[in-house]
This record gives sequence, C-alpha cells and structure tokens, in this order.
Amino acid sequence: MSFRFVGGQLGLLLLVLSGVIALVGIGSAVAYVSGHEAEHAACGALLLTSCIGAALGLALWWTGRHTQDRLGRREALLLVAMGWLFGAALSALPFRMWAAGARSVPDDHAFHHYVDCYFEAMSGLTTTGATVLTKVGSVPDSLLLWRATTHWLGGLGIIVLFVAVLPSLGVGGKRVFRIESPGPTPEGVRPKIQETARVLWLIYVGLSLAEILGLRVLGMTWFESVCHSFATMATGGFSTRDASVAAFDTAAIDAVIILFMLLAGVNFGVYYQVIRGRWRMAYRDPELRVYLGVILAGFIVVAVPLLTHVMHTTTGDRLDPSWQTALRYGLFQTVSIQTTTGFCTADFNQWPAVCRTMLVLLMFAGASAGSTGGGVKIVRCVIVAKVLWAELERVFRPNVVRVVRIGPVAVDSELRLATLAYVLIVFLLFAMGGIALLLLEEGRGVDIVTALTASAATLNNIGPGLGLVGATGNYAWFGEASKVVMSLLMVLGRLEVFAIAVLFVPRFWVRE
Amino acid sequence: MSFRFVGGQLGLLLLVLSGVIALVGIGSAVAYVSGHEAEHAACGALLLTSCIGAALGLALWWTGRHTQDRLGRREALLLVAMGWLFGAALSALPFRMWAAGARSVPDDHAFHHYVDCYFEAMSGLTTTGATVLTKVGSVPDSLLLWRATTHWLGGLGIIVLFVAVLPSLGVGGKRVFRIESPGPTPEGVRPKIQETARVLWLIYVGLSLAEILGLRVLGMTWFESVCHSFATMATGGFSTRDASVAAFDTAAIDAVIILFMLLAGVNFGVYYQVIRGRWRMAYRDPELRVYLGVILAGFIVVAVPLLTHVMHTTTGDRLDPSWQTALRYGLFQTVSIQTTTGFCTADFNQWPAVCRTMLVLLMFAGASAGSTGGGVKIVRCVIVAKVLWAELERVFRPNVVRVVRIGPVAVDSELRLATLAYVLIVFLLFAMGGIALLLLEEGRGVDIVTALTASAATLNNIGPGLGLVGATGNYAWFGEASKVVMSLLMVLGRLEVFAIAVLFVPRFWVRE
Repeated sequence: MSFRFVGGQLGLLLLVLSGVIALVGIGSAVAYVSGHEAEHAACGALLLTSCIGAALGLALWWTGRHTQDRLGRREALLLVAMGWLFGAALSALPFRMWAAGARSVPDDHAFHHYVDCYFEAMSGLTTTGATVLTKVGSVPDSLLLWRATTHWLGGLGIIVLFVAVLPSLGVGGKRVFRIESPGPTPEGVRPKIQETARVLWLIYVGLSLAEILGLRVLGMTWFESVCHSFATMATGGFSTRDASVAAFDTAAIDAVIILFMLLAGVNFGVYYQVIRGRWRMAYRDPELRVYLGVILAGFIVVAVPLLTHVMHTTTGDRLDPSWQTALRYGLFQTVSIQTTTGFCTADFNQWPAVCRTMLVLLMFAGASAGSTGGGVKIVRCVIVAKVLWAELERVFRPNVVRVVRIGPVAVDSELRLATLAYVLIVFLLFAMGGIALLLLEEGRGVDIVTALTASAATLNNIGPGLGLVGATGNYAWFGEASKVVMSLLMVLGRLEVFAIAVLFVPRFWVRE
Repeated sequence: MSFRFVGGQLGLLLLVLSGVIALVGIGSAVAYVSGHEAEHAACGALLLTSCIGAALGLALWWTGRHTQDRLGRREALLLVAMGWLFGAALSALPFRMWAAGARSVPDDHAFHHYVDCYFEAMSGLTTTGATVLTKVGSVPDSLLLWRATTHWLGGLGIIVLFVAVLPSLGVGGKRVFRIESPGPTPEGVRPKIQETARVLWLIYVGLSLAEILGLRVLGMTWFESVCHSFATMATGGFSTRDASVAAFDTAAIDAVIILFMLLAGVNFGVYYQVIRGRWRMAYRDPELRVYLGVILAGFIVVAVPLLTHVMHTTTGDRLDPSWQTALRYGLFQTVSIQTTTGFCTADFNQWPAVCRTMLVLLMFAGASAGSTGGGVKIVRCVIVAKVLWAELERVFRPNVVRVVRIGPVAVDSELRLATLAYVLIVFLLFAMGGIALLLLEEGRGVDIVTALTASAATLNNIGPGLGLVGATGNYAWFGEASKVVMSLLMVLGRLEVFAIAVLFVPRFWVRE
C-alpha cells in the first residue's frame, strides 16, 4: 500500500472540492451582497472552508508529489473511501462555521454540532437527501446551494469528476471508475475510460441544464431551479422547502421532476450509446426495460389503493380521492423512491399498508447500475432472481447446465456468487443498521418501523423512510451515535459496500 | 414424473401414520377408560382417524402397487412434500373430530375450525410448536399426547421413519434421506443409508427414553414426561401446560430439558460416530464447536442485561434480579430459541431490547445440520460468513484463489452458491411472510414486531416470537388466511424450502 501516493491524490481531490466551494462562496457573495447578516456569515464560512481545504489539499499533494507509484487496486479502494469520508468532513465545515459565526442562529440549531453537519454533508455527497434540518428556511440560501451542490458533486461521483478533470491518474483511473460508476455492467461502456468519463460528465451537465431551464420556465426562481435540478439529477432529494416539491403545488413541475428523476435512474451508458448513434444498442439494453417495468408495476400497486384514499400532501393539505390525485402523487412518490431520490409531494406515511410496503420494497430494488441512483440496482435484482430460479431447477435436474444471461451476455459463476454475496451483505447491513438504531435510540422510544426504514433509507441512499423519518419528518432528533451509524450506512451504500468494508479486513493493510 | 408410484409410497406412509394414531388411540382408551366424556370422544376421534387414514392409505397403495418405477429425484421431492402436506391433513383430523363429537367443547374452541387444526398439526409435524390453543387444558390428555407425538414423528422426519421401517424404497431412499436430514453435510454420514437411518432412529429413541426417565424421576407424571420428552427431542416445544416448562418450577427439570435440547440440536451424525467408537471424529466435528460457541456467546449477551432486570416467569411470577435467575432463565431461553425448541420459562417479551434482539438473531442461526432443529443451521452460517469474507478479500486481491473450508473439507463453488442462495431465500421468505401477515391482519391492528417475529418463528420452526406471539401469547387470534400462510412457512422451513418451492416451478411437472 502506497499511502503517500493515495495522500497525494486525495490532496488533489480536496483541492478540486475547495475550488467548487470557493465558486459557490464567491457566487453567493455576489448574489447576496445586500443580504442580511446570516447570508454574509454563510459566504464567509464557504470562503474560509475553501481556504482550509486548499491548504490541506496542497499539503497532502506536496507529500505525495514525487511518488512514482501507479494506482493499484488497494490504492484505488483506499482513495475512493477516503475521498468520501474526508470529502464529507470538508463539505460539512461551511455548515458548522456558519452556525458558529452568524449571530442570528438559534442555540438549538442542528448545525451547532459537527456530527449533524457531517451527517448532512455525507447525506449530500452520497445523494441520500436525509436531513437534520427541522426548518430548511433557517439556513441561508448560499448554504442551501452548497448543500444541493454536494448532491450534484456526489451524483456522478466526485471521483469520476476527478477522473474527467485530472488526467494524472493514468491507467489506474479505470479501476477507480469501475468502483465509482456502480453495479455490474457486463458490457463495459468503453475501453478508453477517461474519454468516457468526459462524455458522461457532459451528458450529466446537459441534463442538469435542461432541467434547470425547464423548472425556471415553470415558475421556480433560478436559485430553486438550480437546487432542485442538482438534487434530481443526482437522485439526491434535498429541497429548498420544508414541504419538498409539494411546496410549489404545480402539476407541471411535478411532471418535469418525475421525468428527470426517471432519466437520472437510467444507466448513463445508455445515453452514451445514444450519443454515439447506437440507438439499437440503447433500445435493447436489458436493464432499461426491467427498470421501467418495475416502476410501472410499482406505480400500479401504489396507485390503486390511493384511488379511494384521502391524500395528505406534505404541505398539510387534504385532497379528496380522485384518479388525478392518485396518478399525480402516486407516480411522483413511486418514481422518487424507486430512483432513490427522496423528493416528497405526499405524506406516504398515511397511505394504506400496501402502498407503504411497496415503497419499502422499491427502496431495495433501487435504480439502474451506472446511474446516479442507489439501492441494490435493478440488474442485480434480475441476476439474483435468475440465479435463485436456476437453483430451484437444479434441485430436480442436477445435471442440466443452466446459463444465467443478462441480455446476450452470460453471467459467469464468479459474478453470480459476487452478486448473491452483495445482496446478502446489503440485507445484513440493513438488519445490523436497524438493530443498532433500535438499541441506540431505546431511551427515546423509537419504534421499529422508524428504525428499520431509517436504516433502509440511508443504506439505499433514499432519504425519507416511514414513521418518524417519513415524508414530513427528519433525522434531527437522532442521537449523535445514531447519526454516525447512519453516515456509515450512507457511504457503505453509495460505494456499494466493498470500498468501505475492505477497510475492516486486516489483510487489506498488510504490505505484500 | 410417476404419480402412481408416488401415490403408492404416500399410501404406505399414511398407513404407518394411521398405525401410530391407532396406537395412541388404543393406549389412551386403556388409560382413560374411566375418564370423562371429552376424553372418550378424543379416543374415538383418534381411532376413527386411524381407520380413515388406513383406508385412504390402502387405496393409494393399491393404485401404485404394480409400478416398477424407482424413486427418482422428482418423485422423492414430491413424496416428501406430499408426505408433510397430507400427513398434517390426517394428523389434524383427531382435533377436528373431537371438537365435533364431544359435547363439553365450548363453541369458541379453536378446534371447531379445520384450518386451526391443520395449523396445529403442521406445527407439530414440523416441530415448530406454535399453538392455536389459548388454554392447553381445554384439550383432553389423549389429544395432547397425540399432539406431542406429531412432534416426535416429525422430529427425525416421518420419512426417515419411513426409510428405517419400510425398506421397499430401495436405493431411492438415499435421495429422500438427503432431503430429510437437512443441511449440507460435507462428510456423508455413511453410504449404506438404510442402516444409518436405523442407527439414527435408535439413537433418537434412546435419547427420548433417557429424557422420559429423567423427567419422571424429577417429579413429572409419566404423561407429562412423555409429552415433554417428545417435544424436546424433536426441538418442538408443545407443552401440556399453558405456562410451558415454568409450570413445574423446578430448577432440576429446567436443567434436564436444557441438556436434552442441547443434545437434540447436535448433528446426529456425531452420535453415530460416537457409537461406532470414532470419538476423535465426533470431537473434531467443526459444526459442533461453533454450535456450542454460538450458544455460549448468545447466552452471555442475553444473561448480562438480565442481572439487573426483574424476571417475569410465564407463570406470572415476578422474581427479583439475581445471578441465579439470570443464569437459569437466560440459559433456558437461549438454548430453547437457538435449538428452535420454543419451550418457555420466562416471558422474554419483557426483557431488555438487547436480549430480545439476540434471541431473534439466534432464531435465524438455528441448530446444527442433521439435527431435529430448524433455522438456517450453524454450518450454513459458517459457510456464508466465510464466503462473504472471501468475497471482501477478492475485491483487493482478485487473483488469489481462496478455498472455503468446513473442517478439512473444501466447499466447492456449487455448494457456495447454493448456500448463499438458500440463506437469501430464507430472508426473502421471512420478509414475504411478515409482509403477508401485516397485510392480512391489517384490520386486526397487528404490530410489525408481531408480524415479523411470527414469520421468523414459523419459518425457522421455533414456536414463540415477540409481541402478541410471545412467550405467553399464542397464534389463536390470527385469521384463517394468515394461518394458511404460516402453515406454508412452517413446512417450507422444515423441508429447507426446496422440496416445497419446486412445486411452484412449472418445469418440475413437465414430462421429460
């Protein structure tokens, strides 16, 4: 293990992150020059953080500048893990420093505690969208913009950004990319990985711009359009309003956000094929159809019971049952949960048990591999289903060789075992997370639904769960230990477990 | 698929079962000749059932008598599945006919409903021990003896009995045995499977007799000794008292039952080796040590919080905290749950969250493969843990070949995949069962703890769960649909999923 080399690369990463923080800070300073005191404090916090981050990054880069090592597998894993853990640590600083510096912040504000700030930043970078803020409006706009930017940076991965922006990684970048753009992709997107990363990046920027324009045209302010587009394309879920998207109460805005959530949950390799003119290949993508099919099926299961159920929106309104409300709110929540975005328009806590159960199942299914979404990923669900079915057949036909295929590609036995192992680990982490929260919060009388769905919603990078962490709830009331546990769950889920879990394997650290 | 042949073998099985029912009926008739009316009705119900079963069995056997087929894999699977499904159907009849025939049975007695009787019989044959009886004393002793006998028959498997008693199965018997004596056993117990089955059977009878004598000496009546020994050796859990074993309130009885629960949870292949004089082989059994280690670890986690906790026994007593009560009740419940027996002395519903969580985890771990216990089985847990660890290492050392070993035997890739698939299916069935119970019982306001632990306790063949199905609760209040679901969960768990699950694979039924 070459710690110096990893340190040097981590330094570069912190430099880039500090640059973005500085951009947000400068932009805010210009926009809110005549704002009130809290706004000024926030700009100061952002600029100060960028200076600290830059100094730290330069120092780290300096120590590793002469190493000739190439990025090996261990180094790549360590870099990814440290990138997220330290990236969140730096991203949390503006929140904490604002709370310390601004006079108008009430004493019981969550951002007075660094653990809360770290939770919020990790929630942002992992595109989870779980918040410790009881009132979003208590935070100045510049910090909300930074919060949305953590989503956007996390979206396609700060490391993919790193690969696209800084070519110094060389061939090792491929390894990082393979961890970063998650899920088993039998057909590699393209061999020249840096070129690919740049194209993916452009697609991501293009889609984000399109959504910003769309939302602006429909009446959001520029600030709100940018924040919500960042949160949509990253399948994050941070909003600028307490009532989330329902605050705008515009069916057209709901529709645009549904569309872009759907787009964000697609494997970006599909767009890459489309751009290269390979429409047929994109059309034939086996995961895409299952992804859309699962959403459709989930929507039907969710919407039918809603036809006769009073709809409570997150703004507190009660709407009489009708097929329009069932369609609008049912589709929005289904897509939001399935793509692991976590925006809310309806308080699905009050929906019938069938709907809530379906939403929890969709939390685990997740979006497509190679998208910005979280969860187990559709392609893995398909592999697991096919392997389990094949195992059932093997019981009575032990000598027949069964080939498990995803589209035209056969899934080899190594990937079959790895996929089952992955899903099993997700279930175990979910159970361990739920149990940890139950035990840690026993004194606060947390119920099992809250504990389990909080575990599922952070591990799968959704955001809202059920019970106390439902559509109108938040994560503010958890104890600090629980917030650490959930921060760990978020980063475990986002990095598909292994990049973090290997840190606990003693042999990972042994020199060979 | 040779349905005639399967039918014929099923006929033989029903004949054997009817014979046992007749024995219980005749024995009860002699013992309770001067008993009250309900007792007479019970004897009549038992004898009538044995006649019906014998007629049915004869008819089935007659249809299949000339088939020259050998027992193929599909036939074996179908026979095992039908054996349990129809075996439970026949075993339920005495309960139902007694309720119909006896004048003194109250109108709201559970046994007025055949679904309840079927649930009770399936719970018996699968050695689960979940009961629909709100008052065990409402049922005459002869039916309680029959109920305990279903445990005992199910214990080593009615099919192993079948293999040991009726040699007509020939070489096909091996296939049945491999399904029946559950769990992956890398070292086959012995090639001559019928001989093995006879030896195992004798061990089982011997241990049961030893326990009967032990309990009798300590003050139980013969009837109670027999019933509790049957339930212990089968890791079943039906008691003759509402307060279960706590009703006897004798530490020595608790100790004897703890000892025999522990013995029943050991792989019977170990006893086989001991009998053959291969002490070293038995001593070296890798599963045995982990099994005892897990129980010890579980006991410590459960007992330590109990040191400062008031103990509520199932008789309703409140005992002040002391190391004696923590030791006695903690050890009893840990062993009872881990071995999937389900006897109760303490109301662990009222224990601290740590204890309850530990017990639920032990429910899934289960006893040893090749024992009468249920659950996932220790050896599978060990394989899963080793495979997951190896997968973690593979992330950073992809080219190192890792051999997963159980003792001296390497686990091949096929078994690794099958084991992961099995555990995953158990988790999925647990979740599906819990969801089904939640949705079916929504109107009755069932809580999620009850629904989930009821699913776990039936799937893993434990008996009691938490919440409404806790140590002092029962399964009487569930709706009929839920009881059908749980009967299915019990038989799925007992037959290790596959023998039942293949029935839902269309290709299983296709002629080849």
